[in-house]
Amino acid sequence: MSGRRDWTKETLVAGVRSGDKRALARAITLVENGDPLAYAVVGDLYRETGRAHSLGVTGPPGVGKSTLIGALVHHVRKLEETVGVISVDPSSPFTSGALLGDRIRLTEHFLDPGVFIRSMGSRGHLGGLSEATLQALLMMDAAGKDRIFIETVGAGQSEVEVIGIVDTVLLVLMPGSGDSIQALKAGIMEIPDVIAVNKMDHPAAKTMANEVRSILALDRDREWKPPIVLTEAARGEGVADLWAKIEQHRAYLESSGELERRRRENLAREVFGVATARAKEHLVQTVQGNPDLRRLLDAVQARELDPLSAVREILEQVFHIPPRDA
Amino acid sequence: MSGRRDWTKETLVAGVRSGDKRALARAITLVENGDPLAYAVVGDLYRETGRAHSLGVTGPPGVGKSTLIGALVHHVRKLEETVGVISVDPSSPFTSGALLGDRIRLTEHFLDPGVFIRSMGSRGHLGGLSEATLQALLMMDAAGKDRIFIETVGAGQSEVEVIGIVDTVLLVLMPGSGDSIQALKAGIMEIPDVIAVNKMDHPAAKTMANEVRSILALDRDREWKPPIVLTEAARGEGVADLWAKIEQHRAYLESSGELERRRRENLAREVFGVATARAKEHLVQTVQGNPDLRRLLDAVQARELDPLSAVREILEQVFHIPPRDA
Repeated sequence: MSGRRDWTKETLVAGVRSGDKRALARAITLVENGDPLAYAVVGDLYRETGRAHSLGVTGPPGVGKSTLIGALVHHVRKLEETVGVISVDPSSPFTSGALLGDRIRLTEHFLDPGVFIRSMGSRGHLGGLSEATLQALLMMDAAGKDRIFIETVGAGQSEVEVIGIVDTVLLVLMPGSGDSIQALKAGIMEIPDVIAVNKMDHPAAKTMANEVRSILALDRDREWKPPIVLTEAARGEGVADLWAKIEQHRAYLESSGELERRRRENLAREVFGVATARAKEHLVQTVQGNPDLRRLLDAVQARELDPLSAVREILEQVFHIPPRDA
Repeated sequence: MSGRRDWTKETLVAGVRSGDKRALARAITLVENGDPLAYAVVGDLYRETGRAHSLGVTGPPGVGKSTLIGALVHHVRKLEETVGVISVDPSSPFTSGALLGDRIRLTEHFLDPGVFIRSMGSRGHLGGLSEATLQALLMMDAAGKDRIFIETVGAGQSEVEVIGIVDTVLLVLMPGSGDSIQALKAGIMEIPDVIAVNKMDHPAAKTMANEVRSILALDRDREWKPPIVLTEAARGEGVADLWAKIEQHRAYLESSGELERRRRENLAREVFGVATARAKEHLVQTVQGNPDLRRLLDAVQARELDPLSAVREILEQVFHIPPRDA
């Protein structure tokens, strides 16, 4: 690709720092490719990060997360703040390339120098999606974006990991999101910080908001009471109110000391998560490249060796972890 | 606990093999406690496993999975087959101890020697829930259970891993399961082998079944077309039909060679999954017990050291994995 050789660590660092879109795009591509240059750039810029407020926007597909993000970006830009958007939701129009469709009017943001939008494919990342997303977040932070939105679906392993790196979690639901309501009720879904019930024109929207409210009311010990906002993202309705609640959450995080605690926890979880993803990658590659270890898997399949004995053998040979029952 | 010392590897192996409930219960408790005796028992019995047909019953909370399992158990017992049930769904009445409530009439099965029911808490397992569930499955298989049902919610990391060990996946939905429909549509949720739309009395049940049907119809390359069955688990309606479809899937697995392929894949995934969970446990413990490594996490929090450099350092020190960019 032309221009590929033009970037050095120095020009990338300087470019990202100055908020240059091409530098940022190139740096994130290098992250996705697992290029050592990317690590060097992030290593250099990391000291300058931590200023951005990150917002995870999660919820089932089809509830209008992308449209809501579009509306939030529009709102935030009017307040003269800059924004980065990372979409890791495979069902999102940000991610699927349906971006220029007139149904979702995001094109205005693509031309705006104060907005940087990037989708991350959910497969094929060396070291995992979570690692790539964190690096992209850090680069956008270093590039001076005030707000960084991460769009993700609320289900699945990698999505849960991705949402674990943000300061504030916004859950988007709509009338018909019965499964999510049940999951909240059963305590299977984490309680978010702010909830939007989108498609407020729907006759069942208020009922749904009340249902969510009554579930959250059971959790009296929670210091921060997650606000519930009705929105109609396609028309921008409720968006200013939603943003006010997000801002309240940020103010709460800062005044309560929760921001530091949460970031400490998120960063530690992320370090262990990325380390584990890499360890797994190393494990799989080592086993695949070693006929003796591959034979262990065959023996498991043939019911000659039980799976846990195979696990013990593999861990001992690859990582020198002694068997627990030794 | 009384009787604890009475069990040896030999008596446990013999007890499980003969289908003795107390031996099976004790062996699974040992699995949950990470007791080396459990590994030895599974190691001895593994050659005798692989005969049972395992069915994963998944779906959002509140759709009636447990009631449906109760009805399936009832049906299967009439066919004179034996059954094991493992519940890893924290919202399940099997798991929550609400078992003896008269709303869900499972007590009959507790007294039936041909049925063994066990719930697995979703936290606190050494090596992960997936490991414990696999071991429990193997023990029930060795105990001669013809059918083993694993109940799990269809979201979250550990649940996805758990469902990865079964032969046949049954997804249970109900009218109102809009989020699951959207997730299927968006390709975010794996296509199951059989689908039950429970609460067929609901006016929207047929609409939902049709919606699912039209989503599945898009996937023309799939050799096995997942059947959709309307059920009313509380009254046992549709259960015989559902069971017939499950049986058809088992027959398909066997005749197509897919059973062997799927089990090979599941076992390999499980070995890597369990090995990774243990590697992570080892990693976290090592870092927590080593002041120098703990200091790396503090440096990340203080924005002095970027997360990936911390990851590299930790992987090198704990697992001797060389940095990728070296």
